[in-house]
Amino acid sequence: MRIGKQSVKFENKPVICAAASIVGKKEGEGPLADDFDVIVADDYFGEKSWEKAESRFQEETAKLALEKANLTEEEAQFVLAGDLLNQCIGAHYAMRDLNIPFLGLYGACSTMTESLMLASMLISGNMADNALCLTSSHFCSAEKQFRYPLEYGGQRTPTSQWTVTGSGAAVLKSNGNGPHIIAATPGKIIDMGISDANNMGGAMAPAAADTLTALFNDTDTEPEDYDLILTGDLGVVGSDVLCELMDKKGKNIYPVHNDCGKLIFDIKKQDVHAGASGCGCCGSVFCGHIYKQLCEKKIKRMILMATGALMNSMTLFQGETIPAIAHAVIIESGEE
Amino acid sequence: MRIGKQSVKFENKPVICAAASIVGKKEGEGPLADDFDVIVADDYFGEKSWEKAESRFQEETAKLALEKANLTEEEAQFVLAGDLLNQCIGAHYAMRDLNIPFLGLYGACSTMTESLMLASMLISGNMADNALCLTSSHFCSAEKQFRYPLEYGGQRTPTSQWTVTGSGAAVLKSNGNGPHIIAATPGKIIDMGISDANNMGGAMAPAAADTLTALFNDTDTEPEDYDLILTGDLGVVGSDVLCELMDKKGKNIYPVHNDCGKLIFDIKKQDVHAGASGCGCCGSVFCGHIYKQLCEKKIKRMILMATGALMNSMTLFQGETIPAIAHAVIIESGEE
Repeated sequence: MRIGKQSVKFENKPVICAAASIVGKKEGEGPLADDFDVIVADDYFGEKSWEKAESRFQEETAKLALEKANLTEEEAQFVLAGDLLNQCIGAHYAMRDLNIPFLGLYGACSTMTESLMLASMLISGNMADNALCLTSSHFCSAEKQFRYPLEYGGQRTPTSQWTVTGSGAAVLKSNGNGPHIIAATPGKIIDMGISDANNMGGAMAPAAADTLTALFNDTDTEPEDYDLILTGDLGVVGSDVLCELMDKKGKNIYPVHNDCGKLIFDIKKQDVHAGASGCGCCGSVFCGHIYKQLCEKKIKRMILMATGALMNSMTLFQGETIPAIAHAVIIESGEE
Repeated sequence: MRIGKQSVKFENKPVICAAASIVGKKEGEGPLADDFDVIVADDYFGEKSWEKAESRFQEETAKLALEKANLTEEEAQFVLAGDLLNQCIGAHYAMRDLNIPFLGLYGACSTMTESLMLASMLISGNMADNALCLTSSHFCSAEKQFRYPLEYGGQRTPTSQWTVTGSGAAVLKSNGNGPHIIAATPGKIIDMGISDANNMGGAMAPAAADTLTALFNDTDTEPEDYDLILTGDLGVVGSDVLCELMDKKGKNIYPVHNDCGKLIFDIKKQDVHAGASGCGCCGSVFCGHIYKQLCEKKIKRMILMATGALMNSMTLFQGETIPAIAHAVIIESGEE
């Protein structure tokens, strides 16, 4: 059911009945290591290219999530997936051996919440009984595609973020036990004129502020109604910008805000400059650490809002700025 | 409501209340010229790059469709859009000035039906009252990205298809007059081992056969129940393969099958080898010629099934084959 100007409230609340996360070596050396299902030491995951490795991350994570949800490929009704690679090949090659109707999404780093939101709409609207939400990123395939060849050893700027190598998958069902999604706010494309590809957090923060403001208005809630407002990967710079933008709108989110891009690495020790990024950042942090906290009821009510920068490397060479988007879902841990 | 193994039947049938199409010069010289809203002689559409031109095609088409539907940007609830360009920049730059919640899709040339299907699910499931479905392609941006620089003047193989320059947009509403979508069958990713980037039709035909078979089974219908089974852009080669594959499964679709990639150009006179392709092919043919025929009730019941090839140019260099997908919707013209 639509509420307010741009949000949807789910009368039949979809349950996140299982989640899985598989990450790379560096992510496995970070503070959330204990909450990932699998840590893969080999950047190539036994494959011959980084792109194939990224697909392998998605495929293995998808299978693990389905297994945890006790769902066979036969029973799974939809997979909603995407990633950062040109033409979303991470998802396509991962899913070609799984015999499940496929809905391809592109939301850049907002993909995890775009998929959770759309899957919730399909399930709540009685179009599906279950759906698999899936995304990934890979440091090497992303650097190669968006920035410089790794061999070049380019210097990273202070505002740059480190793309997470990893994948997250969540299985939603129309009923059962587990944290559930109670509402969602789809984002609009916002472009505030930033054109620095090494300051993604700054480019995405205004989109996050726009969606979050709509969410508060539409659901008639305040920051203090949530244990956690978790953005996807604004990193250190973008998180500061978001909190400040919200403060100017009279919403103090400082006490409850955190960001997947700040959580997954020990930012100083692991030398990741402004934090982490990539579809796999929100994917693996949510499907690992956060999902566990929801299940343990350490978090009772939260907003998960992944953000995406919607340019490609060529548009910036053509003098364009960076359009961005943020999609939010509200998740509750459920009954005591 | 789910029916059969992988289809959805819409109890509240979304109405396609308006559609718009804008195409390039070559498309405007083809047999469907009279049914496009605008024909743009300039490949650059007044912009400085082919990519910006492609965005302009989407933006203008979206605005035109909204205008025809008497829907303001304020009232529009969702836009579901995507295209072939890396990171779907065609849609993102087109939509950044329109203040509408945005759901980014990637289905390659299957995008038109992926968006119609998802929008129908959102509307029928009471998650939205209306949605704009939008896609585009551009011959020059596609050649540059997927094949050779245009200046190189590469020879085209006999099975190659000509990417349509154009955009199609359709506005769906929960009620009103016009053709309506009664059911949909989302496709699975099918990879039959074809690796020739100049034979997209052949690579996509097995995915089309898979989805069409599921549709017939799930809806308990036969080819003769439809006035038209229209595929997205299998072209000449892929259409033959599809009809033959279906024939082997005991479904004779020859009398009712046609393909947008065969309709938009005069294949011989316009020298387009195996026909047309691109998201904008199904987009502009459906939103122009076919939508008009539905409104005039010359077509009473049809299947629209766009197909997508889900590789990128790099995966083929890495020795991969082409995964493909097809999403189908069933459309009826409505009461006499």
